[in-house]
Amino acid sequence: MATLLVKNGRVITADSDGVCDILVEGETIAAIGKNLPMQADETIDATGKLVMPGGIDPHVHLDMPFMGTFSSDTHETGTRAALHGGTTTVIDFVLQKQGHSLREALTEWQGRATGTAVGDYSFHMAVTDFNPSTKEEIKDMVAEGITSFKTFMAYKGALMIDDAQMVGLMQEVKKHGGLVTAHATNGDLIDTLIAQHRAAGQLTPRYHYLSQPEVTEAEASGRFCDIANYTGVNAYIVHLTCEGALNQVRRATERNQRVFVETCIQYLLLDASVYQDEFEGAKWVMSPPLREKKDQQTLWAGINQGLVQVVGTDHCPFMWEQKLMGKDDFSRIPNGHPAIEHRMELLFSEGVMKGRISPQKFVEVTSTNAAKIFGMFPRKGTISIGADADLVLIDPKKKHVISAATHHMNVDYSAYEGHELTGKITTVLLRGQVAVDAGETKVARGYGQFIRRGPVKF
Amino acid sequence: MATLLVKNGRVITADSDGVCDILVEGETIAAIGKNLPMQADETIDATGKLVMPGGIDPHVHLDMPFMGTFSSDTHETGTRAALHGGTTTVIDFVLQKQGHSLREALTEWQGRATGTAVGDYSFHMAVTDFNPSTKEEIKDMVAEGITSFKTFMAYKGALMIDDAQMVGLMQEVKKHGGLVTAHATNGDLIDTLIAQHRAAGQLTPRYHYLSQPEVTEAEASGRFCDIANYTGVNAYIVHLTCEGALNQVRRATERNQRVFVETCIQYLLLDASVYQDEFEGAKWVMSPPLREKKDQQTLWAGINQGLVQVVGTDHCPFMWEQKLMGKDDFSRIPNGHPAIEHRMELLFSEGVMKGRISPQKFVEVTSTNAAKIFGMFPRKGTISIGADADLVLIDPKKKHVISAATHHMNVDYSAYEGHELTGKITTVLLRGQVAVDAGETKVARGYGQFIRRGPVKF
Amino acid sequence: MATLLVKNGRVITADSDGVCDILVEGETIAAIGKNLPMQADETIDATGKLVMPGGIDPHVHLDMPFMGTFSSDTHETGTRAALHGGTTTVIDFVLQKQGHSLREALTEWQGRATGTAVGDYSFHMAVTDFNPSTKEEIKDMVAEGITSFKTFMAYKGALMIDDAQMVGLMQEVKKHGGLVTAHATNGDLIDTLIAQHRAAGQLTPRYHYLSQPEVTEAEASGRFCDIANYTGVNAYIVHLTCEGALNQVRRATERNQRVFVETCIQYLLLDASVYQDEFEGAKWVMSPPLREKKDQQTLWAGINQGLVQVVGTDHCPFMWEQKLMGKDDFSRIPNGHPAIEHRMELLFSEGVMKGRISPQKFVEVTSTNAAKIFGMFPRKGTISIGADADLVLIDPKKKHVISAATHHMNVDYSAYEGHELTGKITTVLLRGQVAVDAGETKVARGYGQFIRRGPVKF
Amino acid sequence: MATLLVKNGRVITADSDGVCDILVEGETIAAIGKNLPMQADETIDATGKLVMPGGIDPHVHLDMPFMGTFSSDTHETGTRAALHGGTTTVIDFVLQKQGHSLREALTEWQGRATGTAVGDYSFHMAVTDFNPSTKEEIKDMVAEGITSFKTFMAYKGALMIDDAQMVGLMQEVKKHGGLVTAHATNGDLIDTLIAQHRAAGQLTPRYHYLSQPEVTEAEASGRFCDIANYTGVNAYIVHLTCEGALNQVRRATERNQRVFVETCIQYLLLDASVYQDEFEGAKWVMSPPLREKKDQQTLWAGINQGLVQVVGTDHCPFMWEQKLMGKDDFSRIPNGHPAIEHRMELLFSEGVMKGRISPQKFVEVTSTNAAKIFGMFPRKGTISIGADADLVLIDPKKKHVISAATHHMNVDYSAYEGHELTGKITTVLLRGQVAVDAGETKVARGYGQFIRRGPVKF
Ligand SMILES: [Zn+2]
Ligand SMILES: [Zn+2]
Ligand SMILES: [Zn+2]
Ligand SMILES: [Zn+2]
Ligand SMILES: [Zn+2]
Ligand SMILES: [Zn+2]
Ligand SMILES: [Zn+2]
Ligand SMILES: [Zn+2]
Repeated sequence: MATLLVKNGRVITADSDGVCDILVEGETIAAIGKNLPMQADETIDATGKLVMPGGIDPHVHLDMPFMGTFSSDTHETGTRAALHGGTTTVIDFVLQKQGHSLREALTEWQGRATGTAVGDYSFHMAVTDFNPSTKEEIKDMVAEGITSFKTFMAYKGALMIDDAQMVGLMQEVKKHGGLVTAHATNGDLIDTLIAQHRAAGQLTPRYHYLSQPEVTEAEASGRFCDIANYTGVNAYIVHLTCEGALNQVRRATERNQRVFVETCIQYLLLDASVYQDEFEGAKWVMSPPLREKKDQQTLWAGINQGLVQVVGTDHCPFMWEQKLMGKDDFSRIPNGHPAIEHRMELLFSEGVMKGRISPQKFVEVTSTNAAKIFGMFPRKGTISIGADADLVLIDPKKKHVISAATHHMNVDYSAYEGHELTGKITTVLLRGQVAVDAGETKVARGYGQFIRRGPVKF
Repeated sequence: MATLLVKNGRVITADSDGVCDILVEGETIAAIGKNLPMQADETIDATGKLVMPGGIDPHVHLDMPFMGTFSSDTHETGTRAALHGGTTTVIDFVLQKQGHSLREALTEWQGRATGTAVGDYSFHMAVTDFNPSTKEEIKDMVAEGITSFKTFMAYKGALMIDDAQMVGLMQEVKKHGGLVTAHATNGDLIDTLIAQHRAAGQLTPRYHYLSQPEVTEAEASGRFCDIANYTGVNAYIVHLTCEGALNQVRRATERNQRVFVETCIQYLLLDASVYQDEFEGAKWVMSPPLREKKDQQTLWAGINQGLVQVVGTDHCPFMWEQKLMGKDDFSRIPNGHPAIEHRMELLFSEGVMKGRISPQKFVEVTSTNAAKIFGMFPRKGTISIGADADLVLIDPKKKHVISAATHHMNVDYSAYEGHELTGKITTVLLRGQVAVDAGETKVARGYGQFIRRGPVKF
Repeated sequence: MATLLVKNGRVITADSDGVCDILVEGETIAAIGKNLPMQADETIDATGKLVMPGGIDPHVHLDMPFMGTFSSDTHETGTRAALHGGTTTVIDFVLQKQGHSLREALTEWQGRATGTAVGDYSFHMAVTDFNPSTKEEIKDMVAEGITSFKTFMAYKGALMIDDAQMVGLMQEVKKHGGLVTAHATNGDLIDTLIAQHRAAGQLTPRYHYLSQPEVTEAEASGRFCDIANYTGVNAYIVHLTCEGALNQVRRATERNQRVFVETCIQYLLLDASVYQDEFEGAKWVMSPPLREKKDQQTLWAGINQGLVQVVGTDHCPFMWEQKLMGKDDFSRIPNGHPAIEHRMELLFSEGVMKGRISPQKFVEVTSTNAAKIFGMFPRKGTISIGADADLVLIDPKKKHVISAATHHMNVDYSAYEGHELTGKITTVLLRGQVAVDAGETKVARGYGQFIRRGPVKF
Repeated sequence: MATLLVKNGRVITADSDGVCDILVEGETIAAIGKNLPMQADETIDATGKLVMPGGIDPHVHLDMPFMGTFSSDTHETGTRAALHGGTTTVIDFVLQKQGHSLREALTEWQGRATGTAVGDYSFHMAVTDFNPSTKEEIKDMVAEGITSFKTFMAYKGALMIDDAQMVGLMQEVKKHGGLVTAHATNGDLIDTLIAQHRAAGQLTPRYHYLSQPEVTEAEASGRFCDIANYTGVNAYIVHLTCEGALNQVRRATERNQRVFVETCIQYLLLDASVYQDEFEGAKWVMSPPLREKKDQQTLWAGINQGLVQVVGTDHCPFMWEQKLMGKDDFSRIPNGHPAIEHRMELLFSEGVMKGRISPQKFVEVTSTNAAKIFGMFPRKGTISIGADADLVLIDPKKKHVISAATHHMNVDYSAYEGHELTGKITTVLLRGQVAVDAGETKVARGYGQFIRRGPVKF
C-alpha cells in the first residue's frame, strides 16, 4: 500500500490544533504524531502550513437541467474546481422528474457522474413528486446510501411539492432514519410577485431580487419547521439567507426542536446592492437572492451560536451566454452562480483571518458538521485514524486574487472578480492521493467516488 | 521520557471515532495510529474499550467555606474522586470575601489546593465585591491564568453583586479578554420567599424547593443576558436548570447574542419529586433546586441544539451531620450535593447508551467545550498530538451500581444510591500517568497541577 | 314615528354603566337619560335588568350548501333563533363557487336571504377562486357594502385558495379599503391526516379531532399573518381556537402588526374530551375541532389582553339525520354545530357572572368590536344617539337550562343540552321593534334587513 | 339644580359617534339625545365641534420635591393648564420618603393639593420603602381611595425599591385588589453609566440620553412583568418609551399575562435628535429620555394593537433657571418637562387628524382606559348618564401654534415651541361647570376635587 507523509503542518480540526505529521496509507489516515518515525513513499513538507480536513460542500448542482439549459459545470469540471478550492467531497442533487420515479432520476444522474467526477461526490434525492409509488422508493434510496431527501417549496409545476406531500415524505423518511432538506421559500408568493413585475414591465435583474422578499423565505422556513416538528423527522434548511428565516429556527428551539441550517458563502459576504438595472446583476441572480447587511450579521452570529452548522455554496454556474437568455426578462435568467471553488478560501480569509470565527469553527462549518449531518462521519469531515485522507494545506498568509481568468470552474465570469484574499490553498489530498498541488490537478477524471451515506450522527 | 501505549481502543473525540493506538510520551500525546509500531515502556490493552478525552468539570466547590462550615471534599479527596469518575480536570471557585481583595482570596485557595490536589485543577475567581480596587485586580488575575469571573446574583450580603457591579465587572473583563459567568437567580425574590416560608413555619426541605421557583432563575438569566449583550462580554450561565431560563438564552439568539450555558448532571436526571416533608430531601438541597420533567426535556434538547455546551456538577458535598444543621429549618441546610465522581458515567449511561446524545456530543459536553470556553484548548479537552494525555477508558457494556459504600468522595451518602448504570470507567490517565486503574488510585496527593487558562476559543 | 321607552334599566356598553331610560324613535335611539320626561307609544320597564347593545355574530352559515347537504337553519330560522339569544345582527358567508363569479354567488345568497331573514344580516364574500376576473369584482362587492373577504386555507378543491391567490386578493382588497379574513388551517396537512386515518380504518369522530392537531392551525395562522403583513391589508382570523395559533398573532405584534382575532363561544367553554369513539361526538364535529383546557385559558387571556376582539359562533347546524351521513366515516360528518342562539347567554353566564371578564368586555366582544371591525359602527354595536335601537334586556340572576326541546334553532339536538346558565335574555329590540319578548318572537319573516358595511373603524 | 345643554355637537366616545345634545344637571350628565326638548339654564352651541370625554392624565408630578427643588407647576397652576388642554382629571404621585410612612407623605401631599387644585385629581402612592410597617398601610390607602401603588426601579437611595420589596408589595397590593405601577428602568445600570460619563467629563445633555440606553428600560420592564406574573397582581408600566420594553410586554402575553402600558405623548412625537451638546437639550431631559424613530413606530402600533392603553405626559416642569442647575453636569438637570396642557391637542392633531388612530381610540387612550384601569369608571372617562359632566369641545379644523408665550403652565419654555396643530379645544366642562372657554379659565382655585378610586375595571 502506498504511503505518504505530511510533515510538520499545523493540523487543525474541529477539536484539535497542533503541529505534527500525518501518515497516510493507501486511502486513509494511518497515524498522526509528532515527528513520526515511519518512512513513506512520498513526503510533503507542510511546515508553515495549516492542514485541515478536506471540505465538504453539501449543496452543488452539476450538469443539472434547469430552465431549459444545463448548469455549465459537469461532474468533471465541477469536482475538479472544488478540489482546487479544498473541497474534496460534494453532494449533488438528483432531481426526480414529476410523473417519474426516483430510480429513473438516479439512473440518469449516475450516468452523468459515474466515471466522470474527479472529486468524491454523493447525491441528495430531490423528491418533486411524492406519491404512493415514490413513497415505496424511499427505503430503496436509503439502501443506496442516499439518506437525505430534498424538497422544494418553490418552483410550482416543476419541482415544488405541496404540504400534503411534505408531511407524507417526512413521515416516510423518518421511518427509514433519513433527513429531509428544504429549499424553503414560498413559491406561490414568489410566482405572484414575478408575474406582477413582468406585467408591469419591470424586467431587470433587480426585480429578481424584489420578487423574493424576506417574507417569502421566513414564512416557508417557519412552515417547514412546523411540519418537521409535527413529524419528528430530522430536518435541514438549505441556503438560509436572512434574519427572518433564522429567527424561525431560533423560535423553534423554544419547543425543543432542532433544525439544521446551511447558509452559503455568498450570503455571508455579498449583499443585494449588486442588483441594479444593469444586466451585470445577472451574475448573482440566484434563489434566494443576496440580502442585506443585517442579514450577514445574523448569519455570522448564527454560526457562532451553533445554529447555522454548514456553509455551502449552492454552486450552479451558467455561462454568460446562458445568463443572456434573460436579457429582456429577469425571470428567464438561469438561477445560480459559480462558487464551488472558492468557498473555503473565502471563508478562511473573511472568517478566520478577520477574527469572526475560530479555526475550529471553520472546520466545523466547512466539513465536519456536514459529514455528521449527512451520514459520512467519521469517514469524512475529520483528520483521524481510519478516516479518508482528505487533506487541505493552506498557506495562511499568502495573498491572492480571484479571477475568472484563473479559476477552474467552467464558467466565463467570476462572482468575486478581483477580490483579494488572505490564505491560499496549496495542496489538496483526496483519499491519500495528491489531487491538487501548486495549482495543478494531479488526479484524473473518474477518480472521484460515490460516497454512500448513513443516518445523521450529530 | 517515559512512554506508554494505549492499544486498540475505540478512540472517540468530538470529531473522531475509530479503533487505534495512542502513544504517550511523558505527559502528552505523541502519536495516534492504527497499529503503531513504536515500543513503549508500558502498554495498556484497550480492546473493547472506548477511549475518550479526560473529563473537565468546570463547576466544583472543594474545601469551600459556606454557611458556617466547609464542603466536605478537599482538593485532595475531591480531585481523587473526580479521577475515579474520569474527570481529570476541575475548575474550582475562589470566593472573594466582601471587603477584601481578589488576591487575598486567591492566596487562601492556593494555600488549600497547592500540593494537595490529585487531579488537575484551575480556578474561577468569584467577584463578590466589585469596586475600584477590585477592578484593578482583574488584569492581574488574567495574568495568573484565571480568565473566568464568577458572579452571584443571589446570596445578598455574602456573595451577591448588584447590577451596577455586574456591568462594571463585565466592561473590565471584556477589556482583558475574559469571560463572566453567573449563578443567575434573583436573590431578592428568593430571600423573600425563604423569609415567608420561615415566618409561616414551613421549614422542611420541600420549602427550599418552593423558595426558588422557575421565575427566580428565568428572570435573572434574562437580566444577565441583557447586561452581557449591552457590554459585549463573553458570558456563561452556570447550572442552568429550567425551560424558563434556557428560553431567555434562546430568545437572546434573536439579537445575535451568544451566551454559553452549563447545566449539571443532576438537572438532567433527577427531579423535584425528591423534595418532600421528610428530611431525606436534604440530600438534594442545592441551588437552584431540582426541577420538573419538562425541564429535563428542555435541557436534553438544549444539548442537542448546541445551546447547552457544558454538563458540570456544581459538586459541593456535605456530610449528613452537616446537612443536619438544617434539620429544623431548610434555610440552614448547607446547599450542595456530591456529584464530581459520577458525572461522566451517569451521562454516558443515560445519554449515550440510551440514545439521547451521540458519543461525540458526550465528549463535547463533558470535556471539549469546557476546554474551549475556559481557555484550556487544545491542551485539554481532546485527544490530539501535543495535548495532555488525559484519557478515559470505558467498558461500555459493563453494568455497575452507585453507592456511598464504594464511592471515593468524602461524603457519607450518595445522591444516586442504588442507581444501576451501563458503562464503567476502568482506567484513567492524567498527563500520561495512569491515575486510576481497576478502582485503585495510582497517583499521589499533589500530583494535580494548576492549569493556567487563556481566552475563550470556541 | 313610533316611540318606545325602555325605562330604568342598567345600561351597559363598552364604555358606560348606569341606570337610565332609553327613548327609541322609529328605528333608532333618540335619547338616553335619567328619568327621561318624554312620552312614548310604548314603555318597557327594565328595572332590575341589564340593557346592552344587540349582539353581532359575524360568523354564521345559514342555509349553506356543504358536503352535499345544506346547513339546517335558513336565514329565517337562524336569525330568529339569534334574536332569541340577543343577537340582532349576523354576518353570513356567501361562497363563491370555483369557476364562477362573486356576483353569481351573491345573487344566489340574496335569493335565499332577502325577504326571509327575521333579524338583520350582512354578508362576507368568501373568495374561493381568485383570478383576474374575480379581482375585478372586489370593488363591486365593496360598492355593495360587502367589505370583508373570507378565505379558506383548507378544503382543497372546494373552497381553498393557495398563497398566490391569497397575496393577490389581499393586495386588491387593501386597495379598496376592505378586510381579509381567514379560516386559517393547513388544508394539505389535514387532508393527509384524514386520508391516513381512513386508510387505517380509524373512522370514529375522535379521528376528526386527531386529523386537525394544533400545528395545522398554528402554521396557517402564522402564514396568514406573514402574508397580510407583507401586503399591509387589514386581517382577521376567524374561529381561532388554540395557544399555538394565538401565539402567532402575539409574535406578529413584535413587528408592529395588528391582526384581528375571533374565537367562538364553544372554544372557550368546551374541550376535546367530547370526542370519543361513540358517534355522539359527531355533535361537535366542527373545524377546527374543540381543543384542550390550556387552550381555553389562552383564549380567555387573549380576550382580556385585547388580542381576541370577537366571540362568534361559526353556527352551522345539521340535523342528526344529516350528521349520520358520517356514521361510518368521520370525514363524511357535516362539519358544524348549532350555537347562534346561546352565544350571549353562555358568555354572560360563564364570563361575566364568573368574573372572567368585565361587563364592558362582554359588550366589546359580543357586539362593539365586531361593529367596528366590520364597518357597521356606529350604527350597530353600541347604545348611542342615532344608532339602531338594537337592545338586549338581561335578567342577570335568572337561571335557566339549555335544551333542544326549547331552543329555536332548526336542529334536533343541542350542543349544550342540560347546561344551567345564570342570566336570561328576556326582551330583545331590533331597530326599535320588540323582536323577542318573554320567549315569543314579535317580528315576522322578512323583518331583517341587509346591512351595508364600510371600512374598518377600530 | 343648575342645568346646561350642550347642543348639536358630534359626540364621540370610545363606543359612539353621532351628533346630539347633552343635558347636564348639576355635576353629572342627565340626558343625551337628538334635539333634546329640555330647557336648561345655559346652552352651549357645539355645532361643528367634537364633544369628547374630559381627558385623564394619570401621570403628573405637581409641586413635587425632586433633585433639591420643586416641579414648577403647583396643583393650582398644573390642573388649570390641564383644563385648558382638555384634561379634566389628573393623577399625581405622592412620594413616600424612605424611613417614613405612607400616611405622612399622603398628609403632606393633601396639604399641597386640597383647596388648591382647579381641576379634579387623584393620587398614586409611590412606595419607596416597603417594609412591615408600610405593608400594614396598604389597606389604609385603598380605603382612602388610593388603589394604585407606584414603584421606582431606579433612583437608588432615594426612590428605588429592590426586587424583594417589589414582590412583597405586589403580594400585599393584590390582596387588597389594587394595582402596582412601575417606573421600569434599571437604576443600577443607569447610575453606573452616569458615573462613567461624569468621570470621563462627558457632561452635556446628550449624555443624559446615553446614560439610559434601551436595555436599561427593556430589562427592567421584563423583570417587572416577571415578578408581576409570579404574584398575579394587576400591573402597569408607566412612561414606556421603546421597542425593547414593549416587546417584553408582548412576549409576556404568550404566558397569558396582561400588563397595562402607558406611554407619554412626547415619546410618540419627539425623538432623541434633540439631545446634542448644546444645553438647549436640557428642555427634554427626562427619564426615560426620548428615543428613536423606530420606537415611535412601535408605540403607535402598540396603541392600535391594544397593548398600549394609555397616553399620559409625566408632566414635571422646571423653570429654565432650575434646568440651569445642571448647566455643567447633565446629572444635575432636574428631570422632567412640561406637557400637561397639550397632550390632547397634540395627540388629536398628530394621531386622529393624520389618520394614525381612530377618534374612538383617541378617547380610549386619553380618557376611558385610564378611568377603567385606575378605578374611576364609569364616573370618569365617558359621556354617559350619571357620569361626571367632564366634556371637551374641539374645533377639529382650527389651526393653532404652541408657545410658552401663550400656554398656561408655570414654566418659561415650551417643549413644542412653534409646533402647528390642527384641532383646537375651545370649551371644557368639569363636573357640569364650564371650566375653560375661549381661552379663559372659568373655575377658581379649589374647584378641583379629590377623586377616590376603586379596583381595576377593564
Ligand atoms: Zn434552492
Ligand atoms: Zn440549490
Ligand atoms: Zn450556584
Ligand atoms: Zn456552584
Ligand atoms: Zn371555518
Ligand atoms: Zn365558518
Ligand atoms: Zn418615571
Ligand atoms: Zn413620572
